[in-house]
Amino acid sequence: MTDHPSNASVASAASADADAFVAACRDAIGAAHVLTDPHDTAPFLTDWRRRYTGAARAVLRPGTTQEVAAIVKLANTHRVALVPQGGNTGLAGGATPDAAGGQAVVNLARLNRTRALDPSNNTITVEAGVVLAEVQNQARAAQRLFPLSLAAEGSCTIGGNLSTNAGGTAVLRYGNTRELCLGLEVVTPQGEIWDGLRALRKDNTGYDLRDLYIGAEGTLGIITAAVMKLYPLPAANVTALAALPSPHAALDFLALAHRCAGPLLTGFELMSDFCLRLVGKHFPQLRYPFAEPHAQIVLLELSDNESEAHARTLFEQMMEQALESGLVEDAVVAENLAQSRAFWDLREHIPLAQAEEGLNVKHDIGVPISRIGTFIEETDAAIAQAVPGARMVTFGHLGDGNLHYNVQAPEGVDAPAFLAQYQAPLNRIVYDSVHRHHGTFSAEHGLGQLKVDEATHYKAGVEIALMRTLKTAFDPLGLMNPGKVLR
Amino acid sequence: MTDHPSNASVASAASADADAFVAACRDAIGAAHVLTDPHDTAPFLTDWRRRYTGAARAVLRPGTTQEVAAIVKLANTHRVALVPQGGNTGLAGGATPDAAGGQAVVNLARLNRTRALDPSNNTITVEAGVVLAEVQNQARAAQRLFPLSLAAEGSCTIGGNLSTNAGGTAVLRYGNTRELCLGLEVVTPQGEIWDGLRALRKDNTGYDLRDLYIGAEGTLGIITAAVMKLYPLPAANVTALAALPSPHAALDFLALAHRCAGPLLTGFELMSDFCLRLVGKHFPQLRYPFAEPHAQIVLLELSDNESEAHARTLFEQMMEQALESGLVEDAVVAENLAQSRAFWDLREHIPLAQAEEGLNVKHDIGVPISRIGTFIEETDAAIAQAVPGARMVTFGHLGDGNLHYNVQAPEGVDAPAFLAQYQAPLNRIVYDSVHRHHGTFSAEHGLGQLKVDEATHYKAGVEIALMRTLKTAFDPLGLMNPGKVLR
Repeated sequence: MTDHPSNASVASAASADADAFVAACRDAIGAAHVLTDPHDTAPFLTDWRRRYTGAARAVLRPGTTQEVAAIVKLANTHRVALVPQGGNTGLAGGATPDAAGGQAVVNLARLNRTRALDPSNNTITVEAGVVLAEVQNQARAAQRLFPLSLAAEGSCTIGGNLSTNAGGTAVLRYGNTRELCLGLEVVTPQGEIWDGLRALRKDNTGYDLRDLYIGAEGTLGIITAAVMKLYPLPAANVTALAALPSPHAALDFLALAHRCAGPLLTGFELMSDFCLRLVGKHFPQLRYPFAEPHAQIVLLELSDNESEAHARTLFEQMMEQALESGLVEDAVVAENLAQSRAFWDLREHIPLAQAEEGLNVKHDIGVPISRIGTFIEETDAAIAQAVPGARMVTFGHLGDGNLHYNVQAPEGVDAPAFLAQYQAPLNRIVYDSVHRHHGTFSAEHGLGQLKVDEATHYKAGVEIALMRTLKTAFDPLGLMNPGKVLR
Repeated sequence: MTDHPSNASVASAASADADAFVAACRDAIGAAHVLTDPHDTAPFLTDWRRRYTGAARAVLRPGTTQEVAAIVKLANTHRVALVPQGGNTGLAGGATPDAAGGQAVVNLARLNRTRALDPSNNTITVEAGVVLAEVQNQARAAQRLFPLSLAAEGSCTIGGNLSTNAGGTAVLRYGNTRELCLGLEVVTPQGEIWDGLRALRKDNTGYDLRDLYIGAEGTLGIITAAVMKLYPLPAANVTALAALPSPHAALDFLALAHRCAGPLLTGFELMSDFCLRLVGKHFPQLRYPFAEPHAQIVLLELSDNESEAHARTLFEQMMEQALESGLVEDAVVAENLAQSRAFWDLREHIPLAQAEEGLNVKHDIGVPISRIGTFIEETDAAIAQAVPGARMVTFGHLGDGNLHYNVQAPEGVDAPAFLAQYQAPLNRIVYDSVHRHHGTFSAEHGLGQLKVDEATHYKAGVEIALMRTLKTAFDPLGLMNPGKVLR
């Protein structure tokens, strides 16, 4: 991490002005936090899935909001484009610089202080670089729940969660990251600091700047801190599995679960029979949970502020109704924490089993919940016609309309060859179908650089024009994460 | 409402171009829907509280989104400023034109169709002019809850609710109007139609235009339709009253109620002893609910998806804990719907009792919940010093930090004289105190024209500059509700 002589030659590859920018950054934030040696910068220049690799004149690691502002002011002076970066766990390439080498990465990991935790107000104020799991842990220590939860929680940061409006497993009850945020601190593209760190549930005093920065993927400014909502810690989380004949039945069962459990329902995950067969094939210790095979399995979770016993009674009443009305074919309520864990293991091993089975085409799509059954039927049929034998791995957050609608190569077919031939046409079939059903081609991962062209393809011209108006007004020099969200 | 000869002379009072604009509007939306006769236009030119009265060259009543777009295009051609208007029940003068007579009011009441109700997706798609109570009724008919509820619900419209981000009594559980909206249709200041009527819980495909228009009070475009969230209809709503020694105790009690009831807690309203004494004075049939006087009374509501019996048991457990720990001095749970109604009557008669007692200085403020006790203590003391004998009428939505912190003239003092002398200095004391506690001077009513100067006074320059950047980028000609939100 130290600044040694070889840096000079790297810097000289860029223009003289690049040198001047990097030198000024060293003055502003300390040489130890300006990385230019390729060994030091490499981990910051490739995305987590290794789909994108870029180059940068420097990786800057500011330690305070004021240092971020100083960097942005220097970027204005020297006309250097900046790529903000959190935990670098995004799935759309939003935090990777382009290949030209002129951009600078601004990694926010050193902004990792918790500024306040207010249990009476149910809020926590954290800097952008605080890791998500750390926010969860601090909340729990104060007998509170921070409900955002996703696979990368051990390394993703709250700034990245906000910039991509991350989703995760509890959206059904608590909403996306957007719904969990009350206030922001942001460094504008001009290097000004906007202190919008409000901790209020109600504030109607002008335009909603907060929500403009959330989900903007660092293209309108750099989020440096946030006030996030906390909730009372539930007394118990209890899970259950239900077996159903079809996605249509799962929709009716979701309505029943909503009616019976109301806001206690915090999870409703759909998994097709084939998903669980795939898990069983590659992880034989994870047993199929029912004696007979069933077309669809739903994992439900209740978060209960009274007691585990109350949650279990509620589940039993709900399942009884569902079995009597013929909606559900079989059901099992977890007896204890270990069994709850085992049910979630089934769900969480689906992507791992997919990886074991070979490369596949992934889609993070969303449609109105009422259309999920029809969407799956129609799109499955279109894919079967286009790619005979393709194996559908359909699972996801049914409760909020977000499906991981993935396609595995036909049995015995070489996966890389399958991908090369079918990835693009499969994407088109799926996204066209999503579009017909008024859905989205990116439910929780964002646009980054991966889906900018899809946005242009599927969004109305007036929407793209409004987005461009915003971008130009906020960032007229185009210094903030260029090429992401918009081109 | 018909177009008769006297209109000609009214129109001629404006410029020749005004005539041309009004004539073109008659062609575009039908002469019957272009009001220029003062008898016809008067009801649209004064706000509900009769604090502001403006003039307009016409009141336009389009019947479709396309007609709204046509009007906006004509306004561009003729450079006429437009004032969008819903039910005209706002409390900040946001829907009243200025006095010059050059603006045109665009009243959206005729856009009153429900375009879709999707129970499986828990969404309703309504046009801007649909009255709030109508949305509630349609939801209920489909066994769903639309939780937005406020005093003006019989005449305010969903377009106005969205444009002002209305709050109301259920924010604690369901959030403001912003949190209840999934998608919008908007006519831009250039007269383009943006179809953002998405019915998705997750959609991460670019900038959040929706939240930009919500709460913008018609200054960035005209909302013409929206997709709103619905919820399962609770099986029972049960209320209770608790007597407490202080606002500080009420805060601890709120934490206890959150812990015990979690998301079932849908109301937590604070009322000082003086509030209830005032109600008893002017409405003697509404009896003080406890045998002994208590400094503070809290009204709680539980919305339960199981049963009334379950809600009552939960209340009893909660009150037992609160009484045992000394937080609460006395408590009573409503035995039936009539008693629940009577409890709410106490709360809802406070503003009416205030009106009976005489003119007073009102504040719609919010602070972080944890600061409410200290805020009340400090501000009460400052007011007592500035205006000896002033009587504080403090009540409101403690559960979301929003207080109606009102000041009644000292006993025997002439109210109009009191207002003339003390309104401005009292506002300054209250808003300065709010500012010190990181609160807001407009929690749920918006800025309109009433609080534009407060915004300039209390907001940081960088925030006002960002708001101005947005306004200029979206509405460079300044045709959309000029003078509101920003000046």
